[in-house]
Amino acid sequence: MAVRLIALYAPPEDPAAFDTHYRDTHAPIVRRYPGLRDLRLTRADGVAGRPPAFYLMAEMAFDSRADLDAALASDAGIESGRDLRNFAGAGVTLLVADDQSGL
Amino acid sequence: MAVRLIALYAPPEDPAAFDTHYRDTHAPIVRRYPGLRDLRLTRADGVAGRPPAFYLMAEMAFDSRADLDAALASDAGIESGRDLRNFAGAGVTLLVADDQSGL
Repeated sequence: MAVRLIALYAPPEDPAAFDTHYRDTHAPIVRRYPGLRDLRLTRADGVAGRPPAFYLMAEMAFDSRADLDAALASDAGIESGRDLRNFAGAGVTLLVADDQSGL
Repeated sequence: MAVRLIALYAPPEDPAAFDTHYRDTHAPIVRRYPGLRDLRLTRADGVAGRPPAFYLMAEMAFDSRADLDAALASDAGIESGRDLRNFAGAGVTLLVADDQSGL
């Protein structure tokens, strides 16, 4: 995968409600992104006994940065952004990782 | 890759000095981790014109959480932790992503 949009979700107050909303509502919107090649969801754990800074990492893969930007500007992209307020009140950090631009 | 240790480095004051230290000093220590299967380095970009919350993402892959914990407890793991103070003053967030425990 060439370019990933990575969403890092802060630990929610109600993990069970978060999981249900993500699985049943948010993920289906994300899967409608045009050009989406892969959606990988990963639980985050802490290191050395410390709690993790993030609860869930969602990695959305695209062929190019242009495809990623087009997905975010699409109807599904706008809908997913609006849906964040329904479950991600604890915060979400978004990053773009261009795997072709490594150190 | 089954389990990843992910280091998210906050934007440094001096990116050129950060890059030089990471490449010439820190990465060689990380590559000595016992059981390390892969080290992937990715520049982070922002989304929607916002600056990224992180500057560099380092993904270190292991076969298992036990291998990851052993690597952090090894001489190289301890040395890499000590080396953070030499270049990561802006902050680093560590996560463990177990790709077998997706939502």
